[in-house]
Amino acid sequence: VTGGAHPRPGFSAADHAVLALGLEVTGTPKPGNVDRRRDYDDLRFEHFLAGGVGARPGLERAAEGAPVGEAFEAAVAGMSQQSGGNTQFGCLLDLVPLVSAAADGSLTPAGVERVVAGTTVADAAGFYRAFDHVDVTVADPPEGMDDLDVRRGSGAVPAVRERGLTLADVLARSEGDGNAREWERGFPRTFRAAEAMLDDDGPAPDRVARAFLSLLSEEPDTLVRVEQGPDVAYEVMDRAEAAGRDLAAAEDLAEEFHARGINPGTTADVTAAATFVALERGLPV
Amino acid sequence: VTGGAHPRPGFSAADHAVLALGLEVTGTPKPGNVDRRRDYDDLRFEHFLAGGVGARPGLERAAEGAPVGEAFEAAVAGMSQQSGGNTQFGCLLDLVPLVSAAADGSLTPAGVERVVAGTTVADAAGFYRAFDHVDVTVADPPEGMDDLDVRRGSGAVPAVRERGLTLADVLARSEGDGNAREWERGFPRTFRAAEAMLDDDGPAPDRVARAFLSLLSEEPDTLVRVEQGPDVAYEVMDRAEAAGRDLAAAEDLAEEFHARGINPGTTADVTAAATFVALERGLPV
Repeated sequence: VTGGAHPRPGFSAADHAVLALGLEVTGTPKPGNVDRRRDYDDLRFEHFLAGGVGARPGLERAAEGAPVGEAFEAAVAGMSQQSGGNTQFGCLLDLVPLVSAAADGSLTPAGVERVVAGTTVADAAGFYRAFDHVDVTVADPPEGMDDLDVRRGSGAVPAVRERGLTLADVLARSEGDGNAREWERGFPRTFRAAEAMLDDDGPAPDRVARAFLSLLSEEPDTLVRVEQGPDVAYEVMDRAEAAGRDLAAAEDLAEEFHARGINPGTTADVTAAATFVALERGLPV
Repeated sequence: VTGGAHPRPGFSAADHAVLALGLEVTGTPKPGNVDRRRDYDDLRFEHFLAGGVGARPGLERAAEGAPVGEAFEAAVAGMSQQSGGNTQFGCLLDLVPLVSAAADGSLTPAGVERVVAGTTVADAAGFYRAFDHVDVTVADPPEGMDDLDVRRGSGAVPAVRERGLTLADVLARSEGDGNAREWERGFPRTFRAAEAMLDDDGPAPDRVARAFLSLLSEEPDTLVRVEQGPDVAYEVMDRAEAAGRDLAAAEDLAEEFHARGINPGTTADVTAAATFVALERGLPV
């Protein structure tokens, strides 16, 4: 993609995933998120640093070809060894299949679609067990899916087994979730944002922030919709569109969203995933 | 040391070393350094993030019991895969023997003294080869030591071999270098600063910044002395002492030192090393 030698020949896919998590939280302004300039009282920059380092063993398992569910659960368990709570659950849900695809030499939409299609019931069980390690804000499950509510964590595994659902099946049932849509469709937003980051210029964290703003303007953020409702989610989208890719203009938005506690989730997750893909493809740092 | 379960039971010594590098650059204000709030034009926060992730394979080798010189060269080679130049050479020089000691279950002054005493001529060769990977600002060598000038990198290895110098011998000849003094004396400033961080309270990056200020007030920084001369090095020490451990008071100092390009080196290195020891001993994040 970039031509020439890779700027980080010694970096493994797990290294790039950990660096992507670090760059994601460093990029600023990312309106409403913890970023290099902003903390929330109980969710701070250092929690993301520790979460990224802690997630590494799980990401390495993914790179070594471990089943996606097992690698994901390990990554979430590792991430949770800091006091900020859930920092990167959604990021890891996107990163694990991408790391698997990268380790297999096929970090492409088709490559990650193969990883998703290959998931099993055991992977779904690993996904549910990951919810035992950390509190994750999610929407109520669809009608008739109470026994599959992710908030049951490992308690839902018998129902998953009984229904014979793979992890791809489970995510296909997560209506309206931005990360689940990436899983279902070969990560189109992730790959598009990665290419935009590679075509962009300037320091990597600025490219991350611009990618975040673009993604935020494209569709309502899942976490904002769950926490603040659809009206706010659409408002956020419109406001991000108005800011465009102008980081100075987005500073005011960052102050406002932070004050209102509007903390986009899925948008940050896809940004981290896109940063990983861009790093693998030679994004300079 | 801390009582109770370790807050990060899944973190290896290499994990804590990488996290220490991240927390070190996150702590703010660290007057004159790149920190969470300040960049230099060509040396930016993200270079330190990438340097820390890149150093990891070398740190893991140290944790696995590899010779110190080999682990250090690998860490520096990995660190250098970013465009900011030398970010953490001195930090790694301090971290590698500490990681070795930690992996051996003896992260104490006596434990790291054993690591230092056990270094060989091959370790000294690894140390010199590390200078091939990145430009490091150092003082001129003492009289009669030109053939051992570290700026020769691997070119000095024949002289090292001929003289039969171990890495401990080489560092003992580095007159006036703050990191070399830590090596010679069982890392006294490192362990003292680590205990102060554990006794401190508040978020980890604030403890890092206060540890940095204390260390900066204790003795002239080696890098400041080499780059700006002894008068400035003493001025920096006095100004840090006047700021005390008051992070608000140190903000003005950070603005001034940054504007004057006064970028303390050894002080940051010892701070990173102390952060590693504190993390191993249960510093909460």
